[in-house]
Amino acid sequence: MFFASDNTGPVHPQIMQAVADANTGYATPYGDDDLMTQVRDQVRDVFEAPEAAVYLVATGTAANVLSLASLTNPWETVFCTPEAHIHEDECNAPEFYMGGAKLTLVPADNAKMSPDALRKSIQAEESRGVHGPQRGPVSLTNVTERGTVYSVAEIQALTRVAKDYDLPVYMDGARFANALVATNASPAEMTWQAGVDVVSLGGTKNGCMGVEAVVMFDPKRAWEFELRRKRGAHLFSKHRFLSAQMLGYLNDGLWMDLARRANAANARLVAGLNLIDGAAYLYDPQANMGFAGWSRAGHKKLHEAGAKYYVWEGSLEGDDPNEVLTARMVCDWSTTNENVDRFLELARG
Amino acid sequence: MFFASDNTGPVHPQIMQAVADANTGYATPYGDDDLMTQVRDQVRDVFEAPEAAVYLVATGTAANVLSLASLTNPWETVFCTPEAHIHEDECNAPEFYMGGAKLTLVPADNAKMSPDALRKSIQAEESRGVHGPQRGPVSLTNVTERGTVYSVAEIQALTRVAKDYDLPVYMDGARFANALVATNASPAEMTWQAGVDVVSLGGTKNGCMGVEAVVMFDPKRAWEFELRRKRGAHLFSKHRFLSAQMLGYLNDGLWMDLARRANAANARLVAGLNLIDGAAYLYDPQANMGFAGWSRAGHKKLHEAGAKYYVWEGSLEGDDPNEVLTARMVCDWSTTNENVDRFLELARG
Amino acid sequence: MFFASDNTGPVHPQIMQAVADANTGYATPYGDDDLMTQVRDQVRDVFEAPEAAVYLVATGTAANVLSLASLTNPWETVFCTPEAHIHEDECNAPEFYMGGAKLTLVPADNAKMSPDALRKSIQAEESRGVHGPQRGPVSLTNVTERGTVYSVAEIQALTRVAKDYDLPVYMDGARFANALVATNASPAEMTWQAGVDVVSLGGTKNGCMGVEAVVMFDPKRAWEFELRRKRGAHLFSKHRFLSAQMLGYLNDGLWMDLARRANAANARLVAGLNLIDGAAYLYDPQANMGFAGWSRAGHKKLHEAGAKYYVWEGSLEGDDPNEVLTARMVCDWSTTNENVDRFLELARG
Amino acid sequence: MFFASDNTGPVHPQIMQAVADANTGYATPYGDDDLMTQVRDQVRDVFEAPEAAVYLVATGTAANVLSLASLTNPWETVFCTPEAHIHEDECNAPEFYMGGAKLTLVPADNAKMSPDALRKSIQAEESRGVHGPQRGPVSLTNVTERGTVYSVAEIQALTRVAKDYDLPVYMDGARFANALVATNASPAEMTWQAGVDVVSLGGTKNGCMGVEAVVMFDPKRAWEFELRRKRGAHLFSKHRFLSAQMLGYLNDGLWMDLARRANAANARLVAGLNLIDGAAYLYDPQANMGFAGWSRAGHKKLHEAGAKYYVWEGSLEGDDPNEVLTARMVCDWSTTNENVDRFLELARG
Repeated sequence: MFFASDNTGPVHPQIMQAVADANTGYATPYGDDDLMTQVRDQVRDVFEAPEAAVYLVATGTAANVLSLASLTNPWETVFCTPEAHIHEDECNAPEFYMGGAKLTLVPADNAKMSPDALRKSIQAEESRGVHGPQRGPVSLTNVTERGTVYSVAEIQALTRVAKDYDLPVYMDGARFANALVATNASPAEMTWQAGVDVVSLGGTKNGCMGVEAVVMFDPKRAWEFELRRKRGAHLFSKHRFLSAQMLGYLNDGLWMDLARRANAANARLVAGLNLIDGAAYLYDPQANMGFAGWSRAGHKKLHEAGAKYYVWEGSLEGDDPNEVLTARMVCDWSTTNENVDRFLELARG
Repeated sequence: MFFASDNTGPVHPQIMQAVADANTGYATPYGDDDLMTQVRDQVRDVFEAPEAAVYLVATGTAANVLSLASLTNPWETVFCTPEAHIHEDECNAPEFYMGGAKLTLVPADNAKMSPDALRKSIQAEESRGVHGPQRGPVSLTNVTERGTVYSVAEIQALTRVAKDYDLPVYMDGARFANALVATNASPAEMTWQAGVDVVSLGGTKNGCMGVEAVVMFDPKRAWEFELRRKRGAHLFSKHRFLSAQMLGYLNDGLWMDLARRANAANARLVAGLNLIDGAAYLYDPQANMGFAGWSRAGHKKLHEAGAKYYVWEGSLEGDDPNEVLTARMVCDWSTTNENVDRFLELARG
Repeated sequence: MFFASDNTGPVHPQIMQAVADANTGYATPYGDDDLMTQVRDQVRDVFEAPEAAVYLVATGTAANVLSLASLTNPWETVFCTPEAHIHEDECNAPEFYMGGAKLTLVPADNAKMSPDALRKSIQAEESRGVHGPQRGPVSLTNVTERGTVYSVAEIQALTRVAKDYDLPVYMDGARFANALVATNASPAEMTWQAGVDVVSLGGTKNGCMGVEAVVMFDPKRAWEFELRRKRGAHLFSKHRFLSAQMLGYLNDGLWMDLARRANAANARLVAGLNLIDGAAYLYDPQANMGFAGWSRAGHKKLHEAGAKYYVWEGSLEGDDPNEVLTARMVCDWSTTNENVDRFLELARG
Repeated sequence: MFFASDNTGPVHPQIMQAVADANTGYATPYGDDDLMTQVRDQVRDVFEAPEAAVYLVATGTAANVLSLASLTNPWETVFCTPEAHIHEDECNAPEFYMGGAKLTLVPADNAKMSPDALRKSIQAEESRGVHGPQRGPVSLTNVTERGTVYSVAEIQALTRVAKDYDLPVYMDGARFANALVATNASPAEMTWQAGVDVVSLGGTKNGCMGVEAVVMFDPKRAWEFELRRKRGAHLFSKHRFLSAQMLGYLNDGLWMDLARRANAANARLVAGLNLIDGAAYLYDPQANMGFAGWSRAGHKKLHEAGAKYYVWEGSLEGDDPNEVLTARMVCDWSTTNENVDRFLELARG
């Protein structure tokens, strides 16, 4: 009954096997391994983008900050939501890598910004010459940090605003596969066809050990990215083990299977919880994460039974057993029906 | 016949097995996994340093730059050799992480600095008030980037100079185990007992997939290190797989066994090459790396036979078959006697 | 009829004379001039702070960013209002100087934050370990960027919140003298006695050519400040001309006289405008700057007559002559009664 | 008898008068003052460069680091001499402004690099892919920090090397006028016609209060420079007082007159010292600065008589009255024949 996060579950056996299989003899280091050639080809196929530059790093934050740094000058500001991982959870890594650029927080609804809000935020940085921060890229997260999902149409509407001001668009795709499953969109539709310039294709939260691909649809700044990756200390000498993970992940569509499982597990959880008297989701989660409230008494029982998840708002300490506390509930590829059902049973009981 | 580097050989099976074994169920992320507790205990035991702060990162450059950044103010300069990895091979990562601090190059003999040269370099930064860079840490690499080794006595002599000026000392231990084997010193003798404040304990070049431990003997700046690691995007969510590597590496002294093998393979290579007419080492390599010269004709034959190593000075292209070209020859734990002997036979022939 | 800003008016003749008087023979450079000794003594007297460290720089932004950088680690966030000069008008200079630290925008009322809002913002950065930005200093501007003024009691209430979390407090005093005049407080009461750790004493907007003093009540980080100033390229070789300005400014209380004139001119303007039908201040300005609205027709007439000021909200272009546009109106020491009256006459007409 | 530096002498009366004259009424702030239009025109005329971008800053270090930052990526290295002001005397300001780029020290003879040495240093940074720092601009100082001067032909030879590798060239012209006088070259011949891309035209050391012009012959990066200047906190609100200094400096060729005086004073000093038994210049100074050695006894006598200059090598403390100590001797526009002669008389005595 582990619903705390999708970043600490086990590695899928096929991916672990791919890593083990890569462990034969010597391989050219620093990204020039033969497996990386296969990765590059597969990622380009997946995105229908034969010219794209493709790079691997080991953490989602590295993917975010190296990508953003390649798109942003130090005197600019990145437009993102207040809930964005780059704002909330990266200990100023974006500002560090961007040489002191800013983040401008676009008001959002459950971590989704609207085209109007984006336009207003961009316009608000207007017309002060050298004095204010200059406008920089728009950064979208899909699946968002609150478990909501941008549809392709919504992304298009946002990138149109960005393009009105000649601003590039980055997509933090730590849960990219889950977004594809939730929207039934193809990788190309979700990204470059919708106006996204650079995307990170997350592996870590979806069954890998630690690997993310950065896909730059315009390879113009590819060499800069390579230098930034090295200078950030993120270029692996034994790079083949990153390549192997990504290959195992992409082979035979495993990555989409894993996301389907995670989203399905979450759907089962949502359906079950919604049936429980007094329990309610803040909004309908379409991917693998949601926020639901129920009574303190219920939370206590579940915690005592060993369920693991974050109480997001409120505290288990407190007198009133009926007070509603909100939990963040996350499923990953390894969440079983049994786990979900056991949890629901306890929640119900 | 792969002597190009020790950073691209295979992972030792016991370490790979440790990674696979760690892949069960859920684990607390971001360095709070149970395995990390074991790692911390083991590293402290190994260094006889029960108070030391211990952290894991995935690349040697990350270990170097996070450590140095924790020891250096942006207006200071780090004293290192011209051959130092931090100067030559990290694409300005140290300067980036240190917020624009400098490196001062202390003249060196085969990548080893002398106490006199260090003292002169430190003194040369004297007495210009706010105008010049301020004196910062001394950074030593052991085994050095040229395969030479500092003895414990030599380290002591250098750290005494540093302490005369109240400067902290960092040791880049990417090949730390090889240095221990070469000198017969204990980890404690080589580090804190000799005046070293922070050391990186390299795993990647000695049989791991990608892991280095940073050991801070004075835990005062430990929290700062943790924040710098996160802000550098080097904190792994599925950290247990770093922990598992380091545990497999340390268990039953495997790490020292691997270094012994690498050093022994290199000694066999050195002995063999020195017997070959016209071949000569630039200096006597004590650990697992050396630089030797022999004829272009010999190099050509070896390359055609599939031997992999770097020609460090000179070029295979060229008319004179007798011209001496210098090669960098590196052995790792997986270098077999057969490999060495086959190479020597070809070199001889 | 110049009400656009207080940063472009003339230098007061006594200050210009002090500069001219300093131009005799040779003077020790880089802040070691004899005049600086007098400046230091005078500033310490003014603030009743005999131990304070005192430094001069030539721009308000330099004073802000060097001070904040000395108080902030790169992984921290500074608490300020959305209207803060450091956020709006310094082209990311604070982020640059702080090595990528953040600004957290505390909701404000006409650029003044309340203790409650500050506490909530501080608390919101709580409890995410290394993931979120760490809490850094509180930055207050007095007079604020909207012309409002914090009373001593209000400052005390805010610094108490900061101290609850062990956070240092910086005051951007670009219009410090105007705040003193508006509140009748002494420099000591407004700063260290009220819990402020570092203040900038603005000269440029109040009759100087280009000079600001930074006053650190705790000299602990003084040497760091000196290094940061040099590294920021803000240490003047012919420093005596900064010293001379500040001396001329402080001598015989000229600085307070100038602020009194500016505040009085503004009061006359406010009183006059408030009498005009349809004109209204957004709030009552207590110092030398305010925001008032009146009809487009009125604005047009004034602009045609040569009045200089910023239309802050709305645009002179537009059809409706009765639409109310908001102007920012600033007076400085050189604003004469004649200027104000002529402006009012035109506005009335 | 002040020969310590040219950075602390008085401001020339005509320049001070120009500052006083500018002090009338209101002026548009932040570099949009009318005087700046005149400055721009004059500087373009002086350099015969009608398209050049021209900016003012108040310190020589600001001119250097903003220029270099505009020409350098953070992963690059700047080629300069070991004596370069940017290396020795700016407390890591270049590294700070360039986001952590490096300086590579090209071996030099009395602070002048040769084309061969430059080429070797550039080549040494070759062929290590992302690992080493990438090649960045070449930075030349003229007059150099040791008082030597590059001729136009020498500059051409160096820029040809730079252009062979597509590297831009910056000239630190803190003593630019003195170099022109020493070589009889025109500003255009010394800079863009000789392959220099950006030059700083120093005012501070040659009779101004604190002003340097940055001249970018290719205006492509002009807007970036403006943003970097603001972000560095180097944009003056009351900018007209920088403009006024530069105008007074350039008007009627005053700037060249002042440099002629300084160079002539130095020539008189050199001639006189060379006649003194036991005194010798390290090399023949052509501009306004030189390094000469004579006995400790002589130094002591001069110091006691109130002469001000730096003993560069050796120390006044010491027993042997005959030991030769080297002094740095600098003249500026205000050095009189009387001063020089009195100094020589004492030295002789």
